[in-house]
Amino acid sequence: MAPSRHRDYYPPMRVGFVQTEPRFGEVAENLERVRELLADPSADLWVLPELFATGYQFVSREEVEALAEPIPHGATVDALVRLAEERTCHIVAGLAERGEHDRLYNTAVLVGPGGVLAGYRKIHLFAEEKRWFHPGDATFPVADVGQARIGMMICFDHLFPESARTLALAGADLIAHPSNLVMPVFAQVTMRARALENGVFTITANRVGTEGRTDVSLTYTGESQIVAPDGNILVKAPAIGEATEIVKIDVSQARDKAVTAWNDRLRDRRPELYAV
Amino acid sequence: MAPSRHRDYYPPMRVGFVQTEPRFGEVAENLERVRELLADPSADLWVLPELFATGYQFVSREEVEALAEPIPHGATVDALVRLAEERTCHIVAGLAERGEHDRLYNTAVLVGPGGVLAGYRKIHLFAEEKRWFHPGDATFPVADVGQARIGMMICFDHLFPESARTLALAGADLIAHPSNLVMPVFAQVTMRARALENGVFTITANRVGTEGRTDVSLTYTGESQIVAPDGNILVKAPAIGEATEIVKIDVSQARDKAVTAWNDRLRDRRPELYAV
Repeated sequence: MAPSRHRDYYPPMRVGFVQTEPRFGEVAENLERVRELLADPSADLWVLPELFATGYQFVSREEVEALAEPIPHGATVDALVRLAEERTCHIVAGLAERGEHDRLYNTAVLVGPGGVLAGYRKIHLFAEEKRWFHPGDATFPVADVGQARIGMMICFDHLFPESARTLALAGADLIAHPSNLVMPVFAQVTMRARALENGVFTITANRVGTEGRTDVSLTYTGESQIVAPDGNILVKAPAIGEATEIVKIDVSQARDKAVTAWNDRLRDRRPELYAV
Repeated sequence: MAPSRHRDYYPPMRVGFVQTEPRFGEVAENLERVRELLADPSADLWVLPELFATGYQFVSREEVEALAEPIPHGATVDALVRLAEERTCHIVAGLAERGEHDRLYNTAVLVGPGGVLAGYRKIHLFAEEKRWFHPGDATFPVADVGQARIGMMICFDHLFPESARTLALAGADLIAHPSNLVMPVFAQVTMRARALENGVFTITANRVGTEGRTDVSLTYTGESQIVAPDGNILVKAPAIGEATEIVKIDVSQARDKAVTAWNDRLRDRRPELYAV
């Protein structure tokens, strides 16, 4: 019997998330905590939360400006690259970016031992983020890590099915999804649908804890999760407390988009009949 | 205090599903069973399963031809219109349609006391349906029932987020989703996401029972469900057995697409950055 076309070429990949409770503004401390939490032996790919080093609940644009960093050469990215070197891994993490014309972005980076492989500026800004951040104006990126194609989206992007669809059409096998989720139920439901409808792995790395820096207190919902292309939740963190999890995945599962012998998730699409 | 802009103009609407176990080919019997199952007092809108009158597992094109009917004037549609008259309701139901050039379609109709309001020919055919049915070549339709805008899609359309999105962009408040689901988990997850991401009500009317007319035995998964725009499952039928459920909904909930004071499910979209 001939070997199946895909299965034989993909070594298992160890992928994981780090669910943290950042202290607002304590960048060095938050970075150090991530270093402690990374399991040994490391995953091949780690996903950290959105704005993992700074915290989330900014109260002014000046506050974001003070904590935002340039990419690819800022202190947080440099520290992530060193960490990737030490652990021989890749890391997706969310941070506040100071871009051209002093624009501020809610950004995710994919870094490896050699430096930054890709960046993504959040396209769908959530709530007061619209006060400080400029929305991204480039589409969702895909970059190779070994034989896996890694796509990135951030938190609220999950509610727009076009985000994950755009990544799947660009060839993503795995969607890294740094998050600071505050609405219960939402993303844990939609991300399972995203995995299923696109036939991809998804890793949502959410944070925990409460920030009450204004009269609106934000409690982050945890429950970081990794979902397989068949919609199965491979692992889910508790709603409360820091956590790391690693699962071993077979990336080739995401290359086979078949639903039945007659159906393919992407080829069966009828774009000429869709409204956009 | 001024009344809220949407809430005051919409009387509550009673919507429901009928989960049946059709006997293959027994059109008159299956229709009679639906008549018996419809609760009294009736819902304002009922959703029945896909191919509710004929059964699903055809084994030849000839078999479909023998059972398919023209629309709007076939025996099954006529019976549905009479039922809508008797109960003063609207009904969405799936049936096999004989169209122009003797093409066969897996179709859903929306009928009221006055006749057929809209038809939809299934765009994403599932598995062996591709052997007998011609895929629909018109987009997903929306039609008014009272103050509600009703959209239709059929079964496997659920896996393609573009289906429900197209309906939401056309103004649908409620998506009627006649189904013959055989894959566990899939639609019960994706339809909850469809409601949430589009801010619409969804009614999935699934069938139950087993058909073993070939060496592939199909068991239908039941669990018909009605989901609210906030993702809450308002009611769900058991996996086994016939069932009817009615819930009272406030259609205006589907007109308000806000997620936060800053966010709107449709206006926040960035079509220029999406792949289609």
